[in-house]
Amino acid sequence: MKKTVTIIYCPKCGWLLRAAYFAQELLTTFTDDIFGVTLVPSEIAGRFLVSVEDQVIFDRKVEGRFPETKELKQLLRDLVNPNKNLGHSDKKQNDEGQH
Amino acid sequence: MKKTVTIIYCPKCGWLLRAAYFAQELLTTFTDDIFGVTLVPSEIAGRFLVSVEDQVIFDRKVEGRFPETKELKQLLRDLVNPNKNLGHSDKKQNDEGQH
Repeated sequence: MKKTVTIIYCPKCGWLLRAAYFAQELLTTFTDDIFGVTLVPSEIAGRFLVSVEDQVIFDRKVEGRFPETKELKQLLRDLVNPNKNLGHSDKKQNDEGQH
Repeated sequence: MKKTVTIIYCPKCGWLLRAAYFAQELLTTFTDDIFGVTLVPSEIAGRFLVSVEDQVIFDRKVEGRFPETKELKQLLRDLVNPNKNLGHSDKKQNDEGQH
């Protein structure tokens, strides 16, 4: 059963474009791994929250920033297809600087 | 209870950008009227289908074409907020040519 990713964003903050951009990145990379991506406008100001079914994988309020695309893909990959290689940018944090 | 719009598209046909564009149009116009928009890659070639919950409002296979943005907004408006005015482009078909 493939999972649905949900991106909740603050429309009043003008974050629809940002949310739609991330949706397209995830749908491009995980076309066969997820059911789909739902974009949800939030009434809560400043909200930018990404979840997979009931599991939150990124919350702007907790992190104090937006996710990086690479980071978001790694978080999603770990949940939906842990063996998937995300390509040249997909180094483990421990590998950074060793190449 | 706000409804969710689903756009099922054929990723192999390269229709993600088209689907994401329509999603953004609908989310911009119906921010307060819908719960969200789900983008769903389909394994069925040539599929481009828009539904509101279980109700199909546009199916490319039936229509033989893609929807116009105005048309899609009118179809969605009729379901989620029938009294909503979509602005200057929102003439009834019967009014066409009378102005």
